[in-house]
Amino acid sequence: MASAEASVAPTPLLKDELDIVIPTIRNLDFLEMWRPFFQPYHLIIVQDGDPSKTIKVPEGFDYELYNRNDINRILGPKASCISFKDSACRCFGYMVSKKKYIFTIDDDCFVAKDPSGKAINALEQHIKNILSPSTPHFFNTLYDPYREGADFVRGYPFSLREGAKTAVSHGLWLNIPDYDAPTQLVKPRERNTRYVDAVMTIPKGTLFPMCGMNLTFDRELIGPAMYFGLMGDGQPIGRYDDMWAGWCMKVICDHLGLGVKTGLPYIWHSKASNPFVNLKKEYKGIFWQEEIIPFFQSAVLPKDCTSVQKCYLELSKQVKEKLAKVDPYFDKLADAMVTWIEAWDELNPAGAEASAPLPNGQKA
Amino acid sequence: MASAEASVAPTPLLKDELDIVIPTIRNLDFLEMWRPFFQPYHLIIVQDGDPSKTIKVPEGFDYELYNRNDINRILGPKASCISFKDSACRCFGYMVSKKKYIFTIDDDCFVAKDPSGKAINALEQHIKNILSPSTPHFFNTLYDPYREGADFVRGYPFSLREGAKTAVSHGLWLNIPDYDAPTQLVKPRERNTRYVDAVMTIPKGTLFPMCGMNLTFDRELIGPAMYFGLMGDGQPIGRYDDMWAGWCMKVICDHLGLGVKTGLPYIWHSKASNPFVNLKKEYKGIFWQEEIIPFFQSAVLPKDCTSVQKCYLELSKQVKEKLAKVDPYFDKLADAMVTWIEAWDELNPAGAEASAPLPNGQKA
Repeated sequence: MASAEASVAPTPLLKDELDIVIPTIRNLDFLEMWRPFFQPYHLIIVQDGDPSKTIKVPEGFDYELYNRNDINRILGPKASCISFKDSACRCFGYMVSKKKYIFTIDDDCFVAKDPSGKAINALEQHIKNILSPSTPHFFNTLYDPYREGADFVRGYPFSLREGAKTAVSHGLWLNIPDYDAPTQLVKPRERNTRYVDAVMTIPKGTLFPMCGMNLTFDRELIGPAMYFGLMGDGQPIGRYDDMWAGWCMKVICDHLGLGVKTGLPYIWHSKASNPFVNLKKEYKGIFWQEEIIPFFQSAVLPKDCTSVQKCYLELSKQVKEKLAKVDPYFDKLADAMVTWIEAWDELNPAGAEASAPLPNGQKA
Repeated sequence: MASAEASVAPTPLLKDELDIVIPTIRNLDFLEMWRPFFQPYHLIIVQDGDPSKTIKVPEGFDYELYNRNDINRILGPKASCISFKDSACRCFGYMVSKKKYIFTIDDDCFVAKDPSGKAINALEQHIKNILSPSTPHFFNTLYDPYREGADFVRGYPFSLREGAKTAVSHGLWLNIPDYDAPTQLVKPRERNTRYVDAVMTIPKGTLFPMCGMNLTFDRELIGPAMYFGLMGDGQPIGRYDDMWAGWCMKVICDHLGLGVKTGLPYIWHSKASNPFVNLKKEYKGIFWQEEIIPFFQSAVLPKDCTSVQKCYLELSKQVKEKLAKVDPYFDKLADAMVTWIEAWDELNPAGAEASAPLPNGQKA
């Protein structure tokens, strides 16, 4: 059985198959704490804001760094689809990576401890999650049946026990929970102290709020759906970048029979962002999501959408058709979705390694 | 906010609004361990097997006890819908109860301890679960948003934060997991030691394997859907009683906009049942569930099914139409579903208290 195997084999490092993508505007001191876990991996740093600023990266890390000038140079006019002054810019890192897996993390996220006081190797847990199947077609009450010490419970159909390929592993946060501005304002002192020792598959047909703070995905399976939209500078909205990606991604995973997991691992989210600033960024989203979510809940992709790209372009059409009436912003967003796919395909030509772009960052 | 309120108010006991239903064939010594938690409540004991046998109930408990003779006397020919020599007989207790809530537990389930070593008051947690809303229409990554210290995360639509009424609270098991016979045979030594500190709503449109070992529900909201089917004596199948109820119940809850929670509380499941005996009971179910589950996954109830009874009778029609071709058993089961509703309505006339049946048991 799967779990018995898992209990024997150590988790592969995937050292040469995974990039860590970090969007930032500051020196990456937070990496010191992650050194034992991240140093084996290659980092893709996406510098947001003023490109003339120098971002310091602690010694010993292997990285490439892209600032806005790099993005403009590499993508040309297509750079318009990459957000500026918003952590949505991170998705540029997904595009230039050539690895199979991406782990992305915010620079205010630190190593959390499990209830026994042991430092949590978040990346190792993400790798476990993404390498074991998902169960999107039926719910298992003992959570992830592929974990050590767990299995499928009585009444779980045997034909579904092979599971589905896992495309996404969504991790959670101790300390500062990922609340919207109104909840932050109402509950300024709430901290997440509950360590829930579970990984579960989000069932097919169910949408969820995907947070980009602590997230792993399989680029080959779902990469082109991980577009973080148009946010920040020049846009009427912020803080919906990961939500947008999550809704699009989930609809496409459901269509393609791929799985999405949530739960472990936890990271320690150190600092709440300013709720007043957040409210300004979010407030249109608070209205719009009331129409966006039913749109995605009822979105149907035709059978001939057999690749992520085809699915995504079809979704962009439906966004234009059905959400542009909510606000002209969605018309622009739908166009950016198309540009994103064009840029993705340019950097990731099918069946061939794309020519490596030339980053500004140095290999340490 | 809901969670702030919950942190102030103590959990109501619901002493006069909840019955504990226990199916059994033996003396109820297991109640000694539950005494501090169960003694305030009224017990409905459904004695299975030989009615001439005397079941001893520890002193101090308030109970009524029904054996097969009582069931036959109270229901007359309609007693045919109540299983014999199978714990499915427990659903007779749901029918004769006059309370708003039912908690049902197996007599091999004991008090579990939480990770701090504290005895878990399972019933108190079920009451918390059932008195707070569910969130079937969108997934909350921090689990039950109504729990103390939790809330809805960023990106959760505000229009859905009132939640839905909770109809069912499904609790879990430490020690012996609820595995089917093949898994028992393959993993004889597996024990569930993972305490997952979470309660979550099973999303709309998602089926799950409902276990009857540790279960609470709102009779007024969903009672007539909690029929445990035809199992055991004279039937080709066993150990699918709770599964059957779970599938029917979930389809109806989804149709009526009601919520189903799973997770906490844990009970300590003391003893694995014999896997060889289980295999004999289960093996037809192992085939059949491959057709039953797709049937329930695609079942649609028409809009005019506005009560649980109407929904259930409609489901019985669809069972006859679509599952009878799997095996003639389902034809008989569909008829029993109708009989069950007739018996339910007889004992629970709309708008009036039904005349109390005359149990054999004595009030302690």
